Amino acid sequence: MNEEMELDQIIEKIEPIEKEWLEKAKQRTSQLVMPTRALGRIHDIGERLCAINKTLKPTVHRKAFLVMAGDHGVVEEGISAYPQVITGEMVRAFLNGGAGINILADQVNAEVWVVDMGIIAHVAPDSVANPERLLVHKMGQGTQNMAKGPAMSRKNAEAAVLTGFELAADLFKKGVEILGTGDMGIGNTTPSAAIGTVLTNHSIEQMVGRGTGVDDEGLMRKQKAIRRAIEVNQPDPHDGLDVLSKVGGFEIGGIAGCILAAASYHRPLVIDGFISTAGALIAHALCPAVTDYLFAGHCSEEPGHKRMLDHLQLNPILDLGMRLGEGTGGALAMGIIEGAARISRDMLTFEEAGVTEKDA
Amino acid sequence: MNEEMELDQIIEKIEPIEKEWLEKAKQRTSQLVMPTRALGRIHDIGERLCAINKTLKPTVHRKAFLVMAGDHGVVEEGISAYPQVITGEMVRAFLNGGAGINILADQVNAEVWVVDMGIIAHVAPDSVANPERLLVHKMGQGTQNMAKGPAMSRKNAEAAVLTGFELAADLFKKGVEILGTGDMGIGNTTPSAAIGTVLTNHSIEQMVGRGTGVDDEGLMRKQKAIRRAIEVNQPDPHDGLDVLSKVGGFEIGGIAGCILAAASYHRPLVIDGFISTAGALIAHALCPAVTDYLFAGHCSEEPGHKRMLDHLQLNPILDLGMRLGEGTGGALAMGIIEGAARISRDMLTFEEAGVTEKDA
Repeated sequence: MNEEMELDQIIEKIEPIEKEWLEKAKQRTSQLVMPTRALGRIHDIGERLCAINKTLKPTVHRKAFLVMAGDHGVVEEGISAYPQVITGEMVRAFLNGGAGINILADQVNAEVWVVDMGIIAHVAPDSVANPERLLVHKMGQGTQNMAKGPAMSRKNAEAAVLTGFELAADLFKKGVEILGTGDMGIGNTTPSAAIGTVLTNHSIEQMVGRGTGVDDEGLMRKQKAIRRAIEVNQPDPHDGLDVLSKVGGFEIGGIAGCILAAASYHRPLVIDGFISTAGALIAHALCPAVTDYLFAGHCSEEPGHKRMLDHLQLNPILDLGMRLGEGTGGALAMGIIEGAARISRDMLTFEEAGVTEKDA
Repeated sequence: MNEEMELDQIIEKIEPIEKEWLEKAKQRTSQLVMPTRALGRIHDIGERLCAINKTLKPTVHRKAFLVMAGDHGVVEEGISAYPQVITGEMVRAFLNGGAGINILADQVNAEVWVVDMGIIAHVAPDSVANPERLLVHKMGQGTQNMAKGPAMSRKNAEAAVLTGFELAADLFKKGVEILGTGDMGIGNTTPSAAIGTVLTNHSIEQMVGRGTGVDDEGLMRKQKAIRRAIEVNQPDPHDGLDVLSKVGGFEIGGIAGCILAAASYHRPLVIDGFISTAGALIAHALCPAVTDYLFAGHCSEEPGHKRMLDHLQLNPILDLGMRLGEGTGGALAMGIIEGAARISRDMLTFEEAGVTEKDA
């Protein structure tokens, strides 16, 4: 199998949503029993669901999260407040339940799948409560240190994207109607900020935040590591795979693949925070039309996040000062998106409800 | 029964939440398996639920909405884009299902109770699908025109508050763990803006918006009606009942009563948009401690709403450009509040999850 070709073929087939369906959905909204568009952005969300699914009765009953995990060689530059061992420990926690994403996904009745895209730890199936929810697609035991050279080969970058694509495609084929992306990987705000810097044209200072909570010196080290990674690797902003391979991460590539799958299968996808949005930047660099299929779950406390979302022209649904990742912001936003689907689908028109219209 | 005394007694017994419980809840949050307070405002919400209920395991399983409906004499000043007949028609729509609040309350599994606090229409029980959800407590067939004199007597203002109190208290006694307030009443952004002007010290221009969508001339009439209502009635900003009786509405009084009940029964209450928040301003004027028990579901498109919320020092959970009322913003926010309760209750600590802490 020629993977490069396959990715090209995937991208080639992706189309923007049809404006015609958007118009049909807007027409329907205008008839609903309330003042004109009185639910504001709820209508925008609902109408986009209609256009994505080519229906006026969108449903998002079956929901799932793919939580992509990876480790990062750049951690040796002292860019994280937490020890690297936590990546594997948190993967175990996700598989035992009781972490943030488990709790919030549970509330919206969403499945949580955890993908080992390349963490250092080996998670023994018998060491966790729900081993069937672990999908192992290790591209390596963490990436290489991007401050010294490419984080991964171009071949591996492509494989990471294709892995994410296939995992998400599998879920869509099984009937998942809305997918959320999540992430776990100590250090992964650093490659994400590097991707943001390269792809949005903002400065490193505008793009880098404290992640899980580095101190001032850690923040300096983080900025320095990103500066060196960009200098050493010279990623090409016009080539998404080049950026991913040089300053990305395995889980970020996996997230980009999920997004390509959503656009290919005409399903909505909810990105979470800074890392998921870095994945969206890669997917967008590969295929700009993907943003039609994306919902930004929330705006993270990480200062670069809003700038990334602006670049993608995505308006976050929630803004609650969250910065956990894992998919948690997406999970909370899925409740709002489901509300929007229900309004499109179930709300009566003036006529159906027997209510006098404005100009009657 | 001396109602004035009864209301005084209710107010006298209301206490702020205990800081001690807030501290205990914060302590628990600091142990949860994530970077410090990484879910941002979700923790603030969860901790307040803990303090309101005096528990570290808050639950909001059983949910309900009281949608308060009333008509408004001031409509004769030409202040609404919609004909007054719609109030009764929408009440029927709520009782048939299929209106915005039905759809969004359904999603969070919340009961919808509709209260006729004083609408013009008579809703015959056999004319709707769910007559058992209609609670008739008519204080009149709409208020008087506040531009010409008091909207209602002081006695009726008090009775409206006590009615809301008793209806909400009934639900709490039956096991409702979180209550949302909603409203219906053609013209009710006008008394709400008047209440906001009197109680927040903002100008009429800052407080008045287009409601369901009046044109420029309608907006001028609205401002003029409010100016006259304040001039004619001289409501006393230090006397919540005086403000309610002179420039309020029956449903707004009912909402204020619900809020007093939430504070009395130590239950969280979610206010919706402009009208619910006007009710909260009245409740706050009667008893400032009530805000400890309130969550602001969303920030409305109505420009005065944010100013009201600032006055109450409430930070809205959602900001989605909504302006429907009925409780719809509160219903969407209830999903977020439930998520916060689950995080407080169900998320594991570092120790329980077997994950290394930051300073390990």
